[in-house]
Amino acid sequence: MGQAIGHTRWAIAEGYIPSESTGPEPAMTSHETACLLNTGDTDAHVELTLYFANREPVGPYRVTVPARRTLHLRFNDLEDPAPVPRDTDYASVLVSDVPLVVQHTRLDSRQAENALLSTVAFPVPS
Amino acid sequence: MGQAIGHTRWAIAEGYIPSESTGPEPAMTSHETACLLNTGDTDAHVELTLYFANREPVGPYRVTVPARRTLHLRFNDLEDPAPVPRDTDYASVLVSDVPLVVQHTRLDSRQAENALLSTVAFPVPS
Amino acid sequence: MGQAIGHTRWAIAEGYIPSESTGPEPAMTSHETACLLNTGDTDAHVELTLYFANREPVGPYRVTVPARRTLHLRFNDLEDPAPVPRDTDYASVLVSDVPLVVQHTRLDSRQAENALLSTVAFPVPS
Amino acid sequence: MGQAIGHTRWAIAEGYIPSESTGPEPAMTSHETACLLNTGDTDAHVELTLYFANREPVGPYRVTVPARRTLHLRFNDLEDPAPVPRDTDYASVLVSDVPLVVQHTRLDSRQAENALLSTVAFPVPS
Repeated sequence: MGQAIGHTRWAIAEGYIPSESTGPEPAMTSHETACLLNTGDTDAHVELTLYFANREPVGPYRVTVPARRTLHLRFNDLEDPAPVPRDTDYASVLVSDVPLVVQHTRLDSRQAENALLSTVAFPVPS
Repeated sequence: MGQAIGHTRWAIAEGYIPSESTGPEPAMTSHETACLLNTGDTDAHVELTLYFANREPVGPYRVTVPARRTLHLRFNDLEDPAPVPRDTDYASVLVSDVPLVVQHTRLDSRQAENALLSTVAFPVPS
Repeated sequence: MGQAIGHTRWAIAEGYIPSESTGPEPAMTSHETACLLNTGDTDAHVELTLYFANREPVGPYRVTVPARRTLHLRFNDLEDPAPVPRDTDYASVLVSDVPLVVQHTRLDSRQAENALLSTVAFPVPS
Repeated sequence: MGQAIGHTRWAIAEGYIPSESTGPEPAMTSHETACLLNTGDTDAHVELTLYFANREPVGPYRVTVPARRTLHLRFNDLEDPAPVPRDTDYASVLVSDVPLVVQHTRLDSRQAENALLSTVAFPVPS
């Protein structure tokens, strides 16, 4: 414990938040999550940039993952500098000042039953 | 922003577009997607080749991912040199003139509720 | 086309074939698949070994992926030297005489609606 | 057979065990699994540490994966030093004394139909 593991840059090429959901909120609200794990003894300051199909990138969004903590960040909750548009394809790049591990998960509850996807994000070699 | 990240060759060994769907089109049409992210300042020219179980490969299909953009490419929409056959196992290789990040996602809506899968594609070491 | 890509050894730590299915066979039968892609000009001879929780490994199972072809191998169909037991945790290792790309997919139709999972297998560094 | 493959440290940034399930137990109980594969001839002694959003890490949990065996470990079953809290975001790091391959799977049966996710865990370069 206390040893930092992972990479400082990660990319998630898939991103899409449906505007519709089925089931009790907020657990069953359709959402897109980046799970960030900081195993080190130093807080991680992370900057996210969002990429779109038809306009310039938006960012940076800023979040902190405290030392020895995990943050399961819902893209739905990002507000500054702008909320993430619904029903819109996007992608993201995360840059941290200390190494992290990043996994990407989506809960899709547009139809009556939920669907899940998950994959470790793409670690950018440094 | 503006720095190219990723690889120039990617492989997706899984591919299958069901002929049947349930739910409103086009969002809920069963589809297979390659999410391409180009973080660099140069447009990416990408060539896709499709591999099958019982015949020679088909391609190249050509798409462009503009600089600082993401393209969520539906295999369903590929037409030239030939549409992708439904209910048929296939695989794909993507070659780009600049580095990209590629993630593979399938929405399967054959039955009443949709299912999702996703994984970062296999980056071919250069 | 014609250039071999990938690795010659791959591991899939997850494996489980439910004994129950819902929906039309064979497309909707619960199944576990290893998608193998051989982009090279030489046929790939692949040996699979299955690992279990409580007994010695079983194998090798032998399959061929022809040059420039993909094989989406259903573990359900393996018969020699022994069928894959249902409702049993297993794992697998694939060894090929030429490089391949391997992706693992499961369709689970135990309940009325199907669920999917997929991930690129673990490439063993050579 | 008998050759150890994989890595000795793995991270899984995503973790969440829903408190609710639908369907027959235990197969359809919502669960989070780490599939561990030990292909070598030496038993693997594994220590897991769990990370949370708002408190210090908990661990180590200790499990053994015998030589030439796979263990599909349900986080639901971990009891010592403390059970894994439900409806709580967590992440995990696994450290083994011999190389393993690790894949992460979740079955989510909160709603009537189950959902699955899976991804190879993040192998920490040694």
